[in-house]
Amino acid sequence: MKNIFSLLLFFTLGHLPTHSFAQTEFAADSIFIKKIFDESLARGKAYEWLRVLTTEIGGRLSGSEGAEKAVTYSQKVMESEGFDRVFLQNVNVPHWVRGKAEKAYIQAGSKQITVPIAALGGSVATPKEGVKAQVVEVMNFEQLRALGKEKIQGKIVFYNRPMDPTKLNTFEAYAGAVDQRGNGATEAAKLGAVGAIVRSMTTRLDDFPHTGGMRYGAGVPLIPTAAISTNGAELLSKTLKENPATQFYFQQNSESLPDAPSHNVVGETRGSTQASEILVVGGHLDSWDLAQGAHDDGSGCVQAIEALRLLKSLGYQPKRTLRAVMYMNEENGLRGGVAYADSARSKKENHLAAIESDRGGFTPLGFGIVGDAAKKAKIMAWQPLFIPYGLYAIGPGGGGADIGPLAQQGATLLGLVPDSQRYFDYHHAASDKFEAISQRELQMGAASMAAMLYLIDKYGL
Amino acid sequence: MKNIFSLLLFFTLGHLPTHSFAQTEFAADSIFIKKIFDESLARGKAYEWLRVLTTEIGGRLSGSEGAEKAVTYSQKVMESEGFDRVFLQNVNVPHWVRGKAEKAYIQAGSKQITVPIAALGGSVATPKEGVKAQVVEVMNFEQLRALGKEKIQGKIVFYNRPMDPTKLNTFEAYAGAVDQRGNGATEAAKLGAVGAIVRSMTTRLDDFPHTGGMRYGAGVPLIPTAAISTNGAELLSKTLKENPATQFYFQQNSESLPDAPSHNVVGETRGSTQASEILVVGGHLDSWDLAQGAHDDGSGCVQAIEALRLLKSLGYQPKRTLRAVMYMNEENGLRGGVAYADSARSKKENHLAAIESDRGGFTPLGFGIVGDAAKKAKIMAWQPLFIPYGLYAIGPGGGGADIGPLAQQGATLLGLVPDSQRYFDYHHAASDKFEAISQRELQMGAASMAAMLYLIDKYGL
Repeated sequence: MKNIFSLLLFFTLGHLPTHSFAQTEFAADSIFIKKIFDESLARGKAYEWLRVLTTEIGGRLSGSEGAEKAVTYSQKVMESEGFDRVFLQNVNVPHWVRGKAEKAYIQAGSKQITVPIAALGGSVATPKEGVKAQVVEVMNFEQLRALGKEKIQGKIVFYNRPMDPTKLNTFEAYAGAVDQRGNGATEAAKLGAVGAIVRSMTTRLDDFPHTGGMRYGAGVPLIPTAAISTNGAELLSKTLKENPATQFYFQQNSESLPDAPSHNVVGETRGSTQASEILVVGGHLDSWDLAQGAHDDGSGCVQAIEALRLLKSLGYQPKRTLRAVMYMNEENGLRGGVAYADSARSKKENHLAAIESDRGGFTPLGFGIVGDAAKKAKIMAWQPLFIPYGLYAIGPGGGGADIGPLAQQGATLLGLVPDSQRYFDYHHAASDKFEAISQRELQMGAASMAAMLYLIDKYGL
Repeated sequence: MKNIFSLLLFFTLGHLPTHSFAQTEFAADSIFIKKIFDESLARGKAYEWLRVLTTEIGGRLSGSEGAEKAVTYSQKVMESEGFDRVFLQNVNVPHWVRGKAEKAYIQAGSKQITVPIAALGGSVATPKEGVKAQVVEVMNFEQLRALGKEKIQGKIVFYNRPMDPTKLNTFEAYAGAVDQRGNGATEAAKLGAVGAIVRSMTTRLDDFPHTGGMRYGAGVPLIPTAAISTNGAELLSKTLKENPATQFYFQQNSESLPDAPSHNVVGETRGSTQASEILVVGGHLDSWDLAQGAHDDGSGCVQAIEALRLLKSLGYQPKRTLRAVMYMNEENGLRGGVAYADSARSKKENHLAAIESDRGGFTPLGFGIVGDAAKKAKIMAWQPLFIPYGLYAIGPGGGGADIGPLAQQGATLLGLVPDSQRYFDYHHAASDKFEAISQRELQMGAASMAAMLYLIDKYGL
């Protein structure tokens, strides 16, 4: 096996270019990027900002008091860091509320076994007295449709397809299961079901229900739908195997209120020579109500502010205008991302690139890039500068939901890619809290974003 | 910047070799390694074994009841997995006990502020009534010696040099601070100090004291020494700045008992055609008494057993003999590693390679290799097979303490290198418990070790 890989090996081990001007540039960039990481790891501020956002403010679902406190807090932080301009953008957001905590049990013979559930975001309430019905377990929509109206009418559909644990990137496993959450209620309602229960989107077996957004299709009855914890799902499945006539009861009090006024929060460091070219770094301020929203996406917000602070604290004068954007309402509407892009279009702003962090505050491993091939290649060529920090994976990939709408305006999109193994342990569940964050990992991500901003600002795209 | 990296880029992106036989081999290996990871992630057993080892058995310091239970348990697990042979090796181990929990406070004026400390492993007790004395804070031995006997006599020396947070590999930061723990008492005693307090080896600020081994130099008084939590160290330092006459009190009850009998535990899958060549995969069974020893090194033990189980469960028939070795007494003596190597030498066993996991159960990022250049290059050439699993860093590095003694017998040593950012949050502290382990990350590491065993077995070195 030795020879076939030797050439490859020679190059993967980071032999540096020999052209002397390029070497000088490479050395200068290396030194500056090391300064960014040093500042971040030794004197970083993101962790303390996150502590306030998660433990003092807490859950920040669009339309909630927490969301408005988060707007005020992030504005205050950017102002106190002396950014050149800090401003709010109006966004009208959906306003869904959970109401009183849900109740649910499995009726196993004469026994009622309580299980943890959480209404899915956007779901209607059950009738006040709850819903109780026989349960039909399915793994996918094909199986559901094959059962047909006759078997589904009047029942509760239980979607129990797990995220595939063999997917190395847990986001792929999520993508392969999340249709149950998004469309499960609608598909079940088409066949006359009275409710839909969805296995939580995580590969862990535990007692946390993981909520998340769902949508009703047009013209079908709005039936209540909730996530059940993975341990609950395993128990329900086992009970059904023992007794197919097992019933399930759940009661939830969720409600959709009229849209509420809210804001994106933007902080800006003005460019010196090419101020009209804008580089964005961002995350989303809103989070599900069940938790403190630490990984999703308090991390991304404080990392975005920190990225600008790191460059400023090192005396870096950008050529281009750098913006940290806290988007509102990624979770159940994406209104913030759309509003930001609409504003950019109407003001004829020129967004060169946007970087988002919305995959958790874990050790960064790379960036995913969306954009034209030449620009992508230019960014990928900076790879050797990131290898000392463990970011080996800089290549094609997803940018981020909030920055997505900027693509139509020609912006190159970059998504920070941290280690994904633990993300869905916390995602949309009560466990997504400050304690789940490592200060060092969070700061490594902020520094990675600052380094990428620096390179795009310096060399353009 | 584009051109200078384009060639490099071309190769780092994993273009595959074109030689057709090599391609076939590469494809076969890729497929088998994917099976290893699939089995590990979908049906892995390491996490449940770790649960028993950490939550049912708990701390396993050499000579303790926990250590002996761990010997019996790991033997039982390997027997129940049907390994060809499971056997114990006698090892006489140091037997240090903490005794009753320590007490400590800062005497700040008339106020006594309690701070968390933990005796360092090997330290003597204080007198029964404890030690109370003025404190001298130093950052290193040079500063200590410059102060001299006059300033140190009768005082408690407080070593407060932090691990350098800007080191990207936290093991380097550890290496740059741990002399204070290992030799601090001896260096202080040479100048007449009555005790030594050492800042915990972690970059986090928290309330956990982190213990660890220390040694007394010959011919100096044995003074008591303890780790203080990082928050405690910050407070003590601040108090000393306000009042240099601040006193510190501590009382500890540790004791060194006569050496105790214990064991390494070895499980073996016999080789088919080259059985006399042995490949070892291992971790150390013992752990400090303060915690459950989950990352250090319950993880490595269960990963080693799992690596053999994974290959067996896939029907793989090794050519060479594969051994999972649970070493005893890595923490305060390394007697298990020495005993294993001694036994191998006396039996004229031929150890081709040994792999250790003793850097925590985090997401694997690579392997460090110690050995002759040609063998190292052969292993590094397998790199492309590991890239789909995120192991980009396969190269020169440390093997592991327990397998170290095998180097003299010509064995190539490999150390699993997981993400190091969080390791010292837990290392040797009460926080190193089962909850700190991610099942997926643990199983990724086990699969990585199994894949490396497979390649060494198949291709030799």
